[in-house]
Amino acid sequence: MHKLLEDRVARLKDVGKQRGFSGFIIATLPNMRYFTGVSVLAIERFAAVIIPIDSEPVFIVPELEEEKIKSLSPFKNVLKYDDAKGPVTLVKSVLEELRLTSGRLGIEGFFPYRFYKMVNNAAPKARLEEASDIFIEFRIVKIADELELMRKAGEIIVKGIDAGVTATRVGATELEIGFEIERRIKQLGGDSVPYCIVLRGENAAFPHGSSSKAEIRQGDTLVMDVSATYEGYFADLTRTVFVGSASARQHEIYDTVLQAQEKAIESVKPGIRAGEIDKAARNVIKEAGYGERFIHRTGHGLGLEVHEDPSITENCTMILRPGMTFTVEPGIYVPQELGVRIEDNIVVTEKGKTTIAACEKSLTIV
Amino acid sequence: MHKLLEDRVARLKDVGKQRGFSGFIIATLPNMRYFTGVSVLAIERFAAVIIPIDSEPVFIVPELEEEKIKSLSPFKNVLKYDDAKGPVTLVKSVLEELRLTSGRLGIEGFFPYRFYKMVNNAAPKARLEEASDIFIEFRIVKIADELELMRKAGEIIVKGIDAGVTATRVGATELEIGFEIERRIKQLGGDSVPYCIVLRGENAAFPHGSSSKAEIRQGDTLVMDVSATYEGYFADLTRTVFVGSASARQHEIYDTVLQAQEKAIESVKPGIRAGEIDKAARNVIKEAGYGERFIHRTGHGLGLEVHEDPSITENCTMILRPGMTFTVEPGIYVPQELGVRIEDNIVVTEKGKTTIAACEKSLTIV
Repeated sequence: MHKLLEDRVARLKDVGKQRGFSGFIIATLPNMRYFTGVSVLAIERFAAVIIPIDSEPVFIVPELEEEKIKSLSPFKNVLKYDDAKGPVTLVKSVLEELRLTSGRLGIEGFFPYRFYKMVNNAAPKARLEEASDIFIEFRIVKIADELELMRKAGEIIVKGIDAGVTATRVGATELEIGFEIERRIKQLGGDSVPYCIVLRGENAAFPHGSSSKAEIRQGDTLVMDVSATYEGYFADLTRTVFVGSASARQHEIYDTVLQAQEKAIESVKPGIRAGEIDKAARNVIKEAGYGERFIHRTGHGLGLEVHEDPSITENCTMILRPGMTFTVEPGIYVPQELGVRIEDNIVVTEKGKTTIAACEKSLTIV
Repeated sequence: MHKLLEDRVARLKDVGKQRGFSGFIIATLPNMRYFTGVSVLAIERFAAVIIPIDSEPVFIVPELEEEKIKSLSPFKNVLKYDDAKGPVTLVKSVLEELRLTSGRLGIEGFFPYRFYKMVNNAAPKARLEEASDIFIEFRIVKIADELELMRKAGEIIVKGIDAGVTATRVGATELEIGFEIERRIKQLGGDSVPYCIVLRGENAAFPHGSSSKAEIRQGDTLVMDVSATYEGYFADLTRTVFVGSASARQHEIYDTVLQAQEKAIESVKPGIRAGEIDKAARNVIKEAGYGERFIHRTGHGLGLEVHEDPSITENCTMILRPGMTFTVEPGIYVPQELGVRIEDNIVVTEKGKTTIAACEKSLTIV
């Protein structure tokens, strides 16, 4: 692991040099984890790793994180600030010592404005620029070890959702079912469950609704959308089932979404534009007359973040390459009536694609 | 609830006018919830509410969040963008229509750099400025309804940690104990458990360490630090117990931390500087000879965020007022040996203070 991290940082410095950056400041957890092997729990405090293109990385962290980083990261240059003094003076002196007070410093798209201002004030002649494309290019193609963790996360979610299906009965609440899902995922070693959305009937017409004490009723459509990590890597799956029975209309909508998903997955292969996948799904749903009711993109990349590149939108021109991983999750949402979504996780391979994770997809009546 | 939100927005506009802002752009979830009653699950997508000082709030959100906001917020002016088109054009036209393309626009400290650049490009003559002090001033004093939710969150965490104590035995893992805590919290209606840190023995020397498969041993010190929300409001409690026995040294360190915490809480009353609380705790720990081993501030504000103002650091000059809520959580951390932390949640009252939430604090041997 340490060798891998050292290689990544060496390559980042090379790319930085080619692109004319004098260094990078990384303050968001997924990138920090990707390049240094640690993530901090700094919450609102400033915590970052500065990676100059011509010297070793330097962490600047609140005192309480110092020892953890030293024990976990191959990079041991950890400078701490105490809570009473704050980070401003330290940031300024480190940038001066590393000769980063002028030139271009690459930052992340989700670098908070407050820290952007702080660094700007500490080094007014430096030019802070978003370098997201560089970080994305590193992370967008997964190596086998990363795929293995994502597969494991997927297996755990499948079993979690199975537990949710088992807990589904008329009178159970959305929250109770979600609780069973989370419990199973944690039991199986999932490190975190950033969301576990269980929505019945008309509540599921909101793709990102919040689970509530609403009770499951006979004839309900039930959507379960769950993300979880295993050693930091995400899977994100959605299963839709029916309670007691499914009407002809429920059948039709489910079959349409499933066919859209199958067509989308079929289309995946290296060399095509990501937008082709969205079109494949969207065409099926449009032809069935539900075009207006498919109110989001077909999918999103997946890895150390639950949403990352590529974004599977109709106009995305990114060319697929082996190792790219993303969700394929078309849906149909009818206000005041129901929502149906089916979501798998896919990786592009040399020959086409492979499924990383998927729930049972034949129409299930619980 | 709708009346409360409308009042908050009206007051925000008044303050904006007094301070020379033409409007605010709110994109972080706690502020969005505080002023509009909703929070979105947009993840990396742009989602914000724009509040001009002279007209009604306007949401700009991805299409999939539109209906949820309309159903939950008193503010119904919700504009959506679709995932393929993205938000840029919409943001530009809304700022033009609201006549916010010049003048000062207040943003949050945690507004992501990417969105800052997007708004800047959409309205190059507008001046985006951090207005965190305004948002903080609104949220720092809690009303009775907010305190009630925090008390409820606290009750739930106390029971969760009790379940963790019950699950503690030689051979159990940190993760297993944490799992029992989370399970209990979710059963009791907690909406989220952003962290649940269970650390044994020397692992607890990292205040923000990650729970692992490390097994509990006879004679261990065991720290359990848990945050959870009830209807969005946080409590954050830490309890330290001992496994099987406690040595004279463990006794001494625990008693020192407890005495530091008691002195700190005793010091709380309206009119003093927040830094006085930190000093009260720090003096006790220094006098006992552990000054170097108390490696963080004494506490942090608590509310819709797990860390908010006031920050209870030695040099914090903020004057305490009734309704301010925060943690009091001194600790002693001895590398390769142990950590001890005790954390309560306190609210300043007219006469002094009241405890919002606290675990059992007499030295417990499990």
